[in-house]
Amino acid sequence: MDYTLSWDADAGGIRYIDQTLLPGRCEPALCTTIDCLARAIERLEIRGAPALGIAGALGVALAARTSPHERMEAFLRDVRGAAEQLKSTRPTAVNLAWGIDRVLARIERADSVDEARRSAVAEAEAVVREDEESCRTLGQHGAGLLPDPCTVLTHCNAGALACRCWGTALGVVRSAVRAGKQVRVIACETRPLHQGSRLTCWELARDGIDVTAIPDSAAAYLMRKGGIDCVIVGADRITSDAVFNKIGTYMHAVAARYHAIPFYVAAPLSTFDAGRSEKDIVIEQRDRRELAYCGDRQLLPEKVNVLNYAFDATPLSLVSAIITEEGVLCPPYDLLSRSGIGPAR
Amino acid sequence: MDYTLSWDADAGGIRYIDQTLLPGRCEPALCTTIDCLARAIERLEIRGAPALGIAGALGVALAARTSPHERMEAFLRDVRGAAEQLKSTRPTAVNLAWGIDRVLARIERADSVDEARRSAVAEAEAVVREDEESCRTLGQHGAGLLPDPCTVLTHCNAGALACRCWGTALGVVRSAVRAGKQVRVIACETRPLHQGSRLTCWELARDGIDVTAIPDSAAAYLMRKGGIDCVIVGADRITSDAVFNKIGTYMHAVAARYHAIPFYVAAPLSTFDAGRSEKDIVIEQRDRRELAYCGDRQLLPEKVNVLNYAFDATPLSLVSAIITEEGVLCPPYDLLSRSGIGPAR
Repeated sequence: MDYTLSWDADAGGIRYIDQTLLPGRCEPALCTTIDCLARAIERLEIRGAPALGIAGALGVALAARTSPHERMEAFLRDVRGAAEQLKSTRPTAVNLAWGIDRVLARIERADSVDEARRSAVAEAEAVVREDEESCRTLGQHGAGLLPDPCTVLTHCNAGALACRCWGTALGVVRSAVRAGKQVRVIACETRPLHQGSRLTCWELARDGIDVTAIPDSAAAYLMRKGGIDCVIVGADRITSDAVFNKIGTYMHAVAARYHAIPFYVAAPLSTFDAGRSEKDIVIEQRDRRELAYCGDRQLLPEKVNVLNYAFDATPLSLVSAIITEEGVLCPPYDLLSRSGIGPAR
Repeated sequence: MDYTLSWDADAGGIRYIDQTLLPGRCEPALCTTIDCLARAIERLEIRGAPALGIAGALGVALAARTSPHERMEAFLRDVRGAAEQLKSTRPTAVNLAWGIDRVLARIERADSVDEARRSAVAEAEAVVREDEESCRTLGQHGAGLLPDPCTVLTHCNAGALACRCWGTALGVVRSAVRAGKQVRVIACETRPLHQGSRLTCWELARDGIDVTAIPDSAAAYLMRKGGIDCVIVGADRITSDAVFNKIGTYMHAVAARYHAIPFYVAAPLSTFDAGRSEKDIVIEQRDRRELAYCGDRQLLPEKVNVLNYAFDATPLSLVSAIITEEGVLCPPYDLLSRSGIGPAR
């Protein structure tokens, strides 16, 4: 099995699958500098909330390994600068900052630059290992929620490609399939960057799981026709009152509620930011070009504006359950808002 | 002003704007044979419910003009064959069959082949004229429903390009703007063929009307943020219980209801098929390729299936009003189901 991203000790860098080349080509790429990694994240060669957490952790380790300074002060300045640079690439996804801060905290506890370098890589590799474990445990928790047989609608890619492997939303599907359930997946293509058709369909087809692509706008109609048993999506950030995830998630949640279909969110605890609420979060807007062109094809006249939010916010009142590695959270989510799980302020 | 399609007496054929070339190029094309017209409709070079009605009417006139037969029986066989060929190109849109049947009925009343040819063109040109009048009257009726200022969300293209000119949903917008109201349009790009970004944005920008493109999946979230005052869409067929329109329409109707936003349908009476109900209508599925590729870009792995419905059905219970050239229909739509307006059985 190929991992989505890993520390490559021999090359002294981060090895990853460049997701912009899928589904045509599955090619490994390598970043040995922070600039390269920042660009890979900005260009969505690496994407998906848990994978961004890993990239952040590995990125700080990379910064620690590549800083030429041997005095702690200059070394820390380098590493902190790299951390800020990486954080600014995708401000909405909380896992990125979580992964960065975790390795940074380990570095700041070190007594020497040498120890900092060693422990940074060790801590980042722990993040990688834990992500895989979390996804598998989360998958088992979620698998129990799926009827047998069932048809699951999903949006974007919360799969192996969004994590180290296995996946969150698609991890639930994989765990259910492994437990012998018959699961069919309807993958919303996910405009504008088609993570649903390009990535979710690719990884499920590769694993022999039944998957069908639809335009995002067809989801509600399939629910009306009775073709969907539940919706499962991932998350980029879960505040005390809302789930931030790929644009379109909210629409599916509204349609699921209207049709009395369960709407599940699958996400590790590293996605939680329970100390904040929806109003605190600014949603990134991405480039006009993503809507104005597709491949070589012009889709929009020059000078026409676009609104291209990367994410939307779904109030927890529309979420039937949140599937985590620690178990399944059900409404009311009072515990969540009281827990304060999430990055330190 | 360029008309979307017209009878070109000099060329003896149908002159139209090839909509597959927009927004890059606005080029007139000409069909002088039924095969050419059928292909233009299948390839969506001509599309939009009222425009299909005009194309059907002009197509039968073209068949009458190009049939070499001078004996009524053979002539009628030719024309009826052409009518069947044209009807089969887009089975879900009722206007196509309506336009075809109207000119065919005129031909069948003629006493001679010569009279049939003359009257076919005259009847088709009446259909063309009436479409323009209907759109302008419908627009005026609908304009009164819009607050000032307002932001209107629309899906696909129910504009000048979907009719002879002016438009249905966008005709309402144009009439409101002409009446001095400040109207801003949010155009859903409309996957998979982007009639929203390619056509709606093109024609509104050309007319200086404020328009912004969004992915289809962002509509519900904009409603949640309070940015949408109403939704207006066109229709491809209105049965006694449902509105058939571009895939995605139903999703917007559900979201509009959830957010207590008016959801309007703008369509001429030629779109009505009140003698039938939702269960009688089979929705066309279009080619897998529309979702699997965009320009030169592969979006889907080989062998993954798609569901690519051209239309969906929105129950009338979600429709706040239907704007027609005869006035605005409001719920309950009992009159509609009793009226039986629509094609003869």
